[in-house]
Amino acid sequence: MTKKKRPLILVTNDDGVSAPGIRALIEVAKRLGDVVVVAPDSPQSGMGHAITVNNTIYCDKVDLSDPSVQIYSSSGTPVDCVKLAMSKILDRKPDLCISGINHGSNSSINVIYSGTMSAAVEAGTLGVPAIGFSLLDGSLEANFEPSKKYVEALCKQALLHGMPKDTVLNVNIPKLPEEEIKGVKVCRQANAKWKESFEKRTNPNGREYYWLTGNFVNLDSGKDTDEWALANGYVSVVPVQFDLTAYTALEAIGKWELP
Amino acid sequence: MTKKKRPLILVTNDDGVSAPGIRALIEVAKRLGDVVVVAPDSPQSGMGHAITVNNTIYCDKVDLSDPSVQIYSSSGTPVDCVKLAMSKILDRKPDLCISGINHGSNSSINVIYSGTMSAAVEAGTLGVPAIGFSLLDGSLEANFEPSKKYVEALCKQALLHGMPKDTVLNVNIPKLPEEEIKGVKVCRQANAKWKESFEKRTNPNGREYYWLTGNFVNLDSGKDTDEWALANGYVSVVPVQFDLTAYTALEAIGKWELP
Repeated sequence: MTKKKRPLILVTNDDGVSAPGIRALIEVAKRLGDVVVVAPDSPQSGMGHAITVNNTIYCDKVDLSDPSVQIYSSSGTPVDCVKLAMSKILDRKPDLCISGINHGSNSSINVIYSGTMSAAVEAGTLGVPAIGFSLLDGSLEANFEPSKKYVEALCKQALLHGMPKDTVLNVNIPKLPEEEIKGVKVCRQANAKWKESFEKRTNPNGREYYWLTGNFVNLDSGKDTDEWALANGYVSVVPVQFDLTAYTALEAIGKWELP
Repeated sequence: MTKKKRPLILVTNDDGVSAPGIRALIEVAKRLGDVVVVAPDSPQSGMGHAITVNNTIYCDKVDLSDPSVQIYSSSGTPVDCVKLAMSKILDRKPDLCISGINHGSNSSINVIYSGTMSAAVEAGTLGVPAIGFSLLDGSLEANFEPSKKYVEALCKQALLHGMPKDTVLNVNIPKLPEEEIKGVKVCRQANAKWKESFEKRTNPNGREYYWLTGNFVNLDSGKDTDEWALANGYVSVVPVQFDLTAYTALEAIGKWELP
């Protein structure tokens, strides 16, 4: 009888390989399978689905005392890391790709700006079940302990069932002590947006520049949304697709007078 | 009787403010309304929906001989440019935002990597009708003349009808002489992916690095797709949404055993 291979789990993030959030994922992933980490060598927050097309990409193995996990650090974006792992580093197709745990929310419209989620989406396009995890705490001292139970449960279910076709999961975890988290809600992306308010400053040479700041505006009071779940103490799980076609709009656009 | 205001059109791109493609958009936009251009000062291809969160953003007015159009050049990403325009530069909400014309395809799965489309999506999230245009010719000497007729027709219809809610358009134009373009097809995003093949090299200091290369793989033979339309001489128009919820997957994930 041949021994069944342990699942292969690819771990990445967008806060960089040394961020505390990715340590929590690695710890959980090691319980469930063989783990390879390929993550950016520096923080890449807000990188969206960026790829490196006009520059070189470095990727070096990081020598760690823990022999049970291979870790690579790359100069590329989160999406580059997934592409590089799949193409050059892994010796077989991973059974699961997990990204995060992001230091800060990727709920609702934040999904489109998120390097964490883009890494998961990239794995999804390559046919790998994938989950992005984010904690609603941007601090470097964030407590990732209460998240681990939910990370483990979701990873186990993904390994058991696989993922619905062309779907990845966007998981956000409220900033609460473990006993105050009420459980998991599968939900839709809330309709929300960022209202920008750039701050104008002048540099020491007299040239004006801006800092991007802004306020998050939730336009959606639905109880079936991720924003509602998080505000009410639940972990939100939104299945995310990368077929962006607005099927319901095909008819209206089809009626336009066009050449 | 008050004179009706001319429409205000915001123009951006991801190839940079000096790219030939954006000149074609500006030329068409000037026929239809008042034009403000806010575009990156350098090429930003593959930037996806990146935003600048940990760095300064410069944005300077470019002095041009043409007084009928205001042009700003920014160190930010395409998405930064739209945010900055909406927040700091425009004196009223634009009636239309157009992005491009990109030097190269943004059809099918390319939409998720595209700075051109992310700028349009960003405008869409802010409630502005928006269209991203791309020509299937990556060359700097690409001929944008045949595209202008389609850009103008689509802009006119968007100004007339507005856009279906939470939808922007992804328009790709085949690399063909004007007389060989058969017209416009409204279609869905083809199911396709990139199969990466990184090229490993060694730098002069002996350190290994990679270049991202890859082959586009179309997995979808549907005649209702953008890939089919483009291969058959049509301009493809895909309505794109930014609610990424995979509604059809909610039920399956809802059955998972979770805390």
